[in-house]
Amino acid sequence: MSDIRRIDPMGGKLSDAVEYNGLIYLAGQVAENLSVGMKQQAEDVLRQIDALLAKCGSDKSRILTATVYVNDMVHKPQMDEAWMAWVDRSDPPARATVEAQLGSPDTLVEIMCTAAKR
Amino acid sequence: MSDIRRIDPMGGKLSDAVEYNGLIYLAGQVAENLSVGMKQQAEDVLRQIDALLAKCGSDKSRILTATVYVNDMVHKPQMDEAWMAWVDRSDPPARATVEAQLGSPDTLVEIMCTAAKR
Amino acid sequence: MSDIRRIDPMGGKLSDAVEYNGLIYLAGQVAENLSVGMKQQAEDVLRQIDALLAKCGSDKSRILTATVYVNDMVHKPQMDEAWMAWVDRSDPPARATVEAQLGSPDTLVEIMCTAAKR
Repeated sequence: MSDIRRIDPMGGKLSDAVEYNGLIYLAGQVAENLSVGMKQQAEDVLRQIDALLAKCGSDKSRILTATVYVNDMVHKPQMDEAWMAWVDRSDPPARATVEAQLGSPDTLVEIMCTAAKR
Repeated sequence: MSDIRRIDPMGGKLSDAVEYNGLIYLAGQVAENLSVGMKQQAEDVLRQIDALLAKCGSDKSRILTATVYVNDMVHKPQMDEAWMAWVDRSDPPARATVEAQLGSPDTLVEIMCTAAKR
Repeated sequence: MSDIRRIDPMGGKLSDAVEYNGLIYLAGQVAENLSVGMKQQAEDVLRQIDALLAKCGSDKSRILTATVYVNDMVHKPQMDEAWMAWVDRSDPPARATVEAQLGSPDTLVEIMCTAAKR
């Protein structure tokens, strides 16, 4: 058995999460419903991160670092609104937010993070 | 002797790979031949990743996470074609793919990844 | 007491640095003075990285990997000038440099890195 655990390896293209040596590497998460605005997409992304971390025996209080990609910096405040309502304020991760076009023109935000297992 | 091992520190600017505590951090890899299209550039990048991992005593089945930068999302399918032909489908890494302009207008793809040693 | 140490958690939004299991994850650092050019902003960013690493009991010779975001590739040479004057040339990190719009139109460069503790 491998010392690396791969969660949800979608058709072999990528794993939604990879565990190794006490760390959890999540794939970039995007919203399932891309027809909504930035705040709702960010909320959706953060819910997916919660779900993946739960599968790996961790939670948002143990996220170490996050990279947030928004497709238009103009809407960063709406992403941050969702983030602030969600983040564990006594244990926030390191973070960078940059603008990048994502998988489709309707994909407004993608978040990739690394967490510690419990 | 340092507990950090640096591979190919090009003129002291950056290292092509850095090993520490069982992990291997690769520099962003770009194609050597930038005159070809996305699929061939991606194949070239993936070959370089294979070569660097081999130097560090690892291989693609032990990549934990990868960030793929493409300079135009329109050509992501060609990158994915090269990726799918290359990736270890039983052990795919976490991954995010975003659009970003790279070192030159002809640089179509750059991939940065982290792997576990064997 | 947590096994994760968070440095400068600004209002609970993000931590400027996070330490876990011998590694230090820094938040993306930008210049404090955004009215100056690329070279000076990069110097400012690198000074902040030095200061954060010092707070965490590390230094630039122990950076493992860095992602550099510049808002215009045209000014990458000025960033690299500051980088080369700063980097520990016998111990350079893995690095990728990509173009991305950052927190404000005046933010010319942001650097996110991971280092090993001493």
